[in-house]
Amino acid sequence: EQISTVSAAMAGKGNYRHFMEKEIHEQPEAIAHTLHAVLDSGTGAATIPAPLDAATIPKITIVAAGTSYYAGLTGRYWLESLAGIATEVELASEFRDRDAVLPEGGVTIAVSQSGESLDTLMALRRAKALGQKTLAIVNVPESTIAREADGVLLTRAGPEFGVASTKATTAQLTAFCSLAVALGRKHGRLSEERAAELRRALAGVPGRVGEVLQREAQYQRVARELAHSRDVLYLGRGLSYPIALEGALKLKEITYIHAEGYAAGEMKHGPIALIDEKMPVVVLAPSDGWFEKTASNVAEVRARGGRVILLTDAAGAERLAEKDDHVMILPDVEPVVAPILYAVPVQLLAYYAAVEKGTDADQPRNLAKSVTVE
Amino acid sequence: EQISTVSAAMAGKGNYRHFMEKEIHEQPEAIAHTLHAVLDSGTGAATIPAPLDAATIPKITIVAAGTSYYAGLTGRYWLESLAGIATEVELASEFRDRDAVLPEGGVTIAVSQSGESLDTLMALRRAKALGQKTLAIVNVPESTIAREADGVLLTRAGPEFGVASTKATTAQLTAFCSLAVALGRKHGRLSEERAAELRRALAGVPGRVGEVLQREAQYQRVARELAHSRDVLYLGRGLSYPIALEGALKLKEITYIHAEGYAAGEMKHGPIALIDEKMPVVVLAPSDGWFEKTASNVAEVRARGGRVILLTDAAGAERLAEKDDHVMILPDVEPVVAPILYAVPVQLLAYYAAVEKGTDADQPRNLAKSVTVE
Repeated sequence: EQISTVSAAMAGKGNYRHFMEKEIHEQPEAIAHTLHAVLDSGTGAATIPAPLDAATIPKITIVAAGTSYYAGLTGRYWLESLAGIATEVELASEFRDRDAVLPEGGVTIAVSQSGESLDTLMALRRAKALGQKTLAIVNVPESTIAREADGVLLTRAGPEFGVASTKATTAQLTAFCSLAVALGRKHGRLSEERAAELRRALAGVPGRVGEVLQREAQYQRVARELAHSRDVLYLGRGLSYPIALEGALKLKEITYIHAEGYAAGEMKHGPIALIDEKMPVVVLAPSDGWFEKTASNVAEVRARGGRVILLTDAAGAERLAEKDDHVMILPDVEPVVAPILYAVPVQLLAYYAAVEKGTDADQPRNLAKSVTVE
Repeated sequence: EQISTVSAAMAGKGNYRHFMEKEIHEQPEAIAHTLHAVLDSGTGAATIPAPLDAATIPKITIVAAGTSYYAGLTGRYWLESLAGIATEVELASEFRDRDAVLPEGGVTIAVSQSGESLDTLMALRRAKALGQKTLAIVNVPESTIAREADGVLLTRAGPEFGVASTKATTAQLTAFCSLAVALGRKHGRLSEERAAELRRALAGVPGRVGEVLQREAQYQRVARELAHSRDVLYLGRGLSYPIALEGALKLKEITYIHAEGYAAGEMKHGPIALIDEKMPVVVLAPSDGWFEKTASNVAEVRARGGRVILLTDAAGAERLAEKDDHVMILPDVEPVVAPILYAVPVQLLAYYAAVEKGTDADQPRNLAKSVTVE
């Protein structure tokens, strides 16, 4: 809403057909700029914005909607495992209208690309009314959410025009991960050695995303098939679970295909009933601590005739791929930063499926860029 | 798994075609028995099982899978709003394998009909290893989860054979609500007057469920139409949000229709793109504090041509129903207990859709009653 058609037109799509395509390809820069902005150039450590610079933080509550909510789910895993801070994530539209019980000294983080999402703004105000300190993670510095929060962590994705968020999402993930590493170091949960390792892994992400983008033709091929599906499941565990949700949302938003994301372990509690030979199942399975269990879920999908589209690394493909699968191999990365990388192929699948189907990726029906109504 | 085919056959379906149909109709008794067991016959107050009888509880973490997870989501709203205890709900399959940060003295509640769900059992063990006290909410007293937990709150639904849980679910909801009222009274969050009012409302639920069941013909009619849909959305806000998730899961499990539940406020962040004139949207909208906002989401659905199936009360229908809607009027109840009542029509819609479609409600493809594998 807040970006006028005029300025969007002025920004231009360059050689790209859609803003979404352009913004997908701007991700190496968006991630690098975000890292650059949050990392201290001297020490390489992320600066911890107020109010997260407090000596102790009893709890972090993340409030957001849509894609930003899924980024928050990933953020939670990082904040708990790397920094040891109890973290909860809630849909802003639900949080704002219920009796949440929050501890004194708790911090609420409001996440929104535009900084204008109405439900997220209202959730931020509700958190303040409940005595919480607040932090905004936004992409627009002069936005309402940035102005009203006690502190701001700015993503540096640059203006985003595509309705389906891409570079702003990976920038949010980058901000969350850097922040979790910094807090983990500060609170003594991470050794300096491990923190340095994770910072190096983060610094390598723009390059790895660039490699994914160089191989986009393979996603285009698979997307052509996805485009003709009625329904698609996305599965992931642990750090890959929110990316499964995000992948499904992207496809749904711009192709109107009924895609749904699930924690892989929940599949047998219901969604597995949907699976037949017409149902493509996109599986996010980097070689990490969850890999073996995800692999057993893939076996169940195959046993029911589901068509597997596997996003993994070379080692994962070696262990898991079978001849009828579509296998997309991503570069090796430290598992902690894998969600930032794996967010990119699910964007490519959705984008090229929309191109194949002929829907307008930049102007999907019924959707607005920033949701400033209830 | 733990209920053998022989014992299921011996239990018998009486005059019903399916165990699911029988168990749906056993809900007034299942709820009444559960209430009777948890409420002190003298005072009418619920007995608070250990370890929730502690003087202070810094946090409750509910772990569960499938339908029990959705019951937990409703439980959370009650525990926070009625008892003022910070509560979080997590998928058991996710919780067991990640670094959750839990406070000293916290209580983890494991919810499972059978008491044998493997992921939920593993999550319970993980919580114990993290120093949490544990409570089991199960329907089978001799189950592993009941044996391993520090305390047990037993639902009294009786044996459940249908793969899609019905009476065990409403019994779980009843247990959670009674418990939240008792904790609210104990911790001084509820006045005795308000607590008594809520206990009366709970005591009235079996009768109201009976009224819903007497009017099942109307659900049967709408289910006939649902059965021929490819996709269905279920929407709700606040206390109705988990019931929307549950309704979608039920339909998915036994009819293989791709149903998905959403918090109504999230619709405009993606799923609204799916809506066209072929998409039925089941809206759960009792007259409560969330009603007005849900009504505005219904207007959005209509504006995009979606077919509205409205579950509401007489006052809600008066304010919201339009001539092209399917409107199902439920009895008036205190809004706090509405989720228990509204869980029933979504079961009826799913069950009669399965009958119409000819799928086997008791033995849906790919699904087992208790998931005792990973």
